[in-house]
Amino acid sequence: MLVDGRTMRTIWLADDGWAVEIIDQTQLPHRLVTTRLESLADAAHAIAVMLVRGAPLIGATAAYGLALAMREDPSDAALAAARTRLLATRPTAVNLRWALESLGERLAALPLAERPAAAYAGAAEIAEEDVAINEAIGRHGLPLIEAAATAKGPGERVNILTHCNAGWLATVDWGTALAPIYKAHDAGIPLHVWVDETRPRNQGAGLTAWELGHHGVPHSVIADNVGGHLMQHGQVDLCITGTDRTTASGDVCNKIGTYLKALAAAANEVPFYVALPGPTVDWSLHDGVAEVPIEQRDGREVSEITGCTAEGRIETVRITPEDSPTVNYAFDVTPAKLVTGLITERGVCSASNDGLLGLYPERAEAS
Amino acid sequence: MLVDGRTMRTIWLADDGWAVEIIDQTQLPHRLVTTRLESLADAAHAIAVMLVRGAPLIGATAAYGLALAMREDPSDAALAAARTRLLATRPTAVNLRWALESLGERLAALPLAERPAAAYAGAAEIAEEDVAINEAIGRHGLPLIEAAATAKGPGERVNILTHCNAGWLATVDWGTALAPIYKAHDAGIPLHVWVDETRPRNQGAGLTAWELGHHGVPHSVIADNVGGHLMQHGQVDLCITGTDRTTASGDVCNKIGTYLKALAAAANEVPFYVALPGPTVDWSLHDGVAEVPIEQRDGREVSEITGCTAEGRIETVRITPEDSPTVNYAFDVTPAKLVTGLITERGVCSASNDGLLGLYPERAEAS
Repeated sequence: MLVDGRTMRTIWLADDGWAVEIIDQTQLPHRLVTTRLESLADAAHAIAVMLVRGAPLIGATAAYGLALAMREDPSDAALAAARTRLLATRPTAVNLRWALESLGERLAALPLAERPAAAYAGAAEIAEEDVAINEAIGRHGLPLIEAAATAKGPGERVNILTHCNAGWLATVDWGTALAPIYKAHDAGIPLHVWVDETRPRNQGAGLTAWELGHHGVPHSVIADNVGGHLMQHGQVDLCITGTDRTTASGDVCNKIGTYLKALAAAANEVPFYVALPGPTVDWSLHDGVAEVPIEQRDGREVSEITGCTAEGRIETVRITPEDSPTVNYAFDVTPAKLVTGLITERGVCSASNDGLLGLYPERAEAS
Repeated sequence: MLVDGRTMRTIWLADDGWAVEIIDQTQLPHRLVTTRLESLADAAHAIAVMLVRGAPLIGATAAYGLALAMREDPSDAALAAARTRLLATRPTAVNLRWALESLGERLAALPLAERPAAAYAGAAEIAEEDVAINEAIGRHGLPLIEAAATAKGPGERVNILTHCNAGWLATVDWGTALAPIYKAHDAGIPLHVWVDETRPRNQGAGLTAWELGHHGVPHSVIADNVGGHLMQHGQVDLCITGTDRTTASGDVCNKIGTYLKALAAAANEVPFYVALPGPTVDWSLHDGVAEVPIEQRDGREVSEITGCTAEGRIETVRITPEDSPTVNYAFDVTPAKLVTGLITERGVCSASNDGLLGLYPERAEAS
């Protein structure tokens, strides 16, 4: 997508053909800083301290981490150590594990001399596959926005609400939830995005607003509290969010607060769509509320907020009393019945086991 | 309620018997600063820049502002000027208008020499009446928490979720939504309060957490996004919020985000109570969603956050991209059907015209 008028991705090979470059997302939205990864240690660090985030981007970064490791030392011991080290950075990230397993096993089967080039090729393949999947999600989601536009009067814009950041910054390019929005904007459909701030980590205010703004998509940042009021007053035509984990029954585990917006959408008859790459469905789960464990993160994410002062300094401020405890659940589960449809790289389906199996029939035996 | 182990109110007469003292709430939760009001100008400033906030406290401060004005100059011209000036500080505040009208008219009917003493007496009466109303709200709400405690196992605490600050800091003492909680805590019922941060002004994180902490009430601050997840998992026994404006039909206009919590409560069969002084019911309104205009406030309340650095400096930081617009609706309307009951100074009733008229039969003709 566009940044300062130029096309950019979240991860790319440097001009020298071996180092890897990324956007340091911890500096957004205040500064656009790119960082050069020259070693396994650099890649592991980038994932661990969240210079990169978002499941697909983490997977691609891990794959390039293997490539950097193989460039230093293609031995079996080094390969095993690299896989262990990268996996430890974000132990619950599904794409990370998958990228390390699939690429790691392919490399292990090769002669040492072939491993570095194969690792770079494999990492590039993982990155391109992510781009292709997200582009397809955008293509399949576009008609939903076109239909909403048709239902509006001439000159009226389509209002879309999104939560958290499921944009290109969370992937290699396009994003998941934002892919249909970019497609619609690029197709000239007048639209406007309500960007949930997404407390406590403010990924909406910081990342979604930043990428929409750079690509030229009209948007407004709102407090997470506002969406219900907007839907009650006809100011939202559809919602599109991403998902971290989707059950075989269509329940959606996504950033905390998604469930509240889905409730408001259902109460006000606003379509609520969730965009996801099919490979992220967890076919072993059938009851998201009961089965998906919800991570509790550091309470300081609630009590402290980082931003930019008027003088341009990055500062962290506490907003709670020193003695008040905080509790920080990171995700919640939106039951399938509140989800209008799932937007995947193969098309749109109902949020149900039947719907998913219609698009992924090869899973019928497995599930 | 207690602050550092001593009983405190939000507004009181200074030891000299004429100046008025308040807590500067803009400094909370980081510093407890009391401010001395010595003139009409001081009182008007305190309301205008929100050193005091909350409808009942604004009303009491305005009444004391009239007293300070009468002490300076009890003439008709000065009285009229004081009323105009105080009303202009927060033109939409109902209690402010009511306090200025009722006390102003009583004073206008008196000889000049009697006005200063009558103004102080009238202001004290308005303050004491607020305390009595809130204490009664607490008394009538207490059985709801007692019932929840009875339903729990031995040693289990009652979990109550609240939104925004409807505590003693918003009133003269006790608060509205927090009054039953203070009553229950003081009665020895084990309880714990989930305190919604309440973006964008963070009144929960800053004020509710501060006052609960000082009074010794166990609590945890959570992002506004979390309540749905907690209710889905049985971690909330009841919700209690305040209200800025209640229709004759029981619709509740309260801080933005209240509606989302009420939806989650209904979806998960969690009782959702709203506490209010009967005099704040707007008997002329019957459809809150259609009839209550929702204030839009300065977008910088969304894009900028003020807090305390690790070094103890109060700083304001921006969390959005410089070019991203923000939209800041301050309130929303929760339809009566989502409200389990209204807690008033006369008792608890259903959120309906019949329920309200049962407690306020004198309004049957008026409405």
